[in-house]
Amino acid sequence: MTDTGLRIIQSREVFSFSLDAVLLSKFATVPKRGRILDLCSGNGVIPLLLTTRTEAQIDAVEIQPRLADMARRSVRMNGLEHRIRIIEEDLKDYGKRLNGYYDAVTVNPPYMATSSGDPNVNEHYSIARHEIHCTLEDVIEACSRAVRTGGKVSMVHRPSRFVEISETMRKWRLEPKRVQFIHPKMDKEANMVLIEAIRDGKPELRVLPPIAVYQS
Amino acid sequence: MTDTGLRIIQSREVFSFSLDAVLLSKFATVPKRGRILDLCSGNGVIPLLLTTRTEAQIDAVEIQPRLADMARRSVRMNGLEHRIRIIEEDLKDYGKRLNGYYDAVTVNPPYMATSSGDPNVNEHYSIARHEIHCTLEDVIEACSRAVRTGGKVSMVHRPSRFVEISETMRKWRLEPKRVQFIHPKMDKEANMVLIEAIRDGKPELRVLPPIAVYQS
Repeated sequence: MTDTGLRIIQSREVFSFSLDAVLLSKFATVPKRGRILDLCSGNGVIPLLLTTRTEAQIDAVEIQPRLADMARRSVRMNGLEHRIRIIEEDLKDYGKRLNGYYDAVTVNPPYMATSSGDPNVNEHYSIARHEIHCTLEDVIEACSRAVRTGGKVSMVHRPSRFVEISETMRKWRLEPKRVQFIHPKMDKEANMVLIEAIRDGKPELRVLPPIAVYQS
Repeated sequence: MTDTGLRIIQSREVFSFSLDAVLLSKFATVPKRGRILDLCSGNGVIPLLLTTRTEAQIDAVEIQPRLADMARRSVRMNGLEHRIRIIEEDLKDYGKRLNGYYDAVTVNPPYMATSSGDPNVNEHYSIARHEIHCTLEDVIEACSRAVRTGGKVSMVHRPSRFVEISETMRKWRLEPKRVQFIHPKMDKEANMVLIEAIRDGKPELRVLPPIAVYQS
């Protein structure tokens, strides 16, 4: 249960949704109607949370069968089959067929480059956390192909990679327009960043008030 | 007078140093000894403040004769002629003669692209605030030429241009490593950003705790 009254299936063994997804769901600018795409969707927590903020049709892409199945079951359990479609596919393949079909895209991609540290022992966690099936650039390319001109792409990631993210977004014609840094406390360094880019947007970044989140 | 006991000459008519310079002087990582360069130095406030934090030799480049003269007089008035040298020159020319001569560089460049808005009526203010004599890329190129491998470049600027700054820094082999956003209040958007880059540094950004500054 979440405070939205939604019921979301998750499993510690496979992957638990985290604060990242909740923060991204609140941060993302979403159209009232139209079409939204969620990439690296996991157990579908972002599409489920977004249904409380928009009437749009939401497509969610997840490559891992077990997670896609959990997402499908959660959608059914909440009676949201008419609002959310779970697509079990590699985002690289899905992205290639798109040409600005969506009004907005959300994504909570794997944070760690495969080169950095040992991938987690649990394969499901590994895929969700490390760039095993897709690199940061694969994700950004898919976002760029998916969203229409003037449409918005919202991402949550680690601040350590912010420079790389904004550079790669620009390469794919996604102009970073709004960012918000999340700090564990106000006197600590940021450990998360929310970024919203506009396809073919005019360069001008806004840095929103910081968020301090005490995580026990 | 400042709280450091330094006496700094300024003129409202020409250019008053502001909070930006004070924040940059505290933020910049400076070597204990060695050589520091300050570009777009104005009335020399940054070099003067830095003398309280380092024994290094500081060179300060300022293109406007009236400001360079004020800086020279402040240096003399504080008996710091052996520590600070004021160089009245265009940073583009000065930068061309350098090849990693400095251990650290600080810069508080003009914030506004010449294309944006009407330049201020007062010419001295205009030059200090608008990219009249040098563009953002000219400044970053000069920083890159001035600093040695592993040396640090610290800049204060507007958050709206952060993406452009980090991209241009990378183009000139300056890797952004530390940033700090300044908010007028914690619940307001940032209106200043402090950025420190390392020449040929490894990509990995740290986002320091935010600073809230109430400016009356």
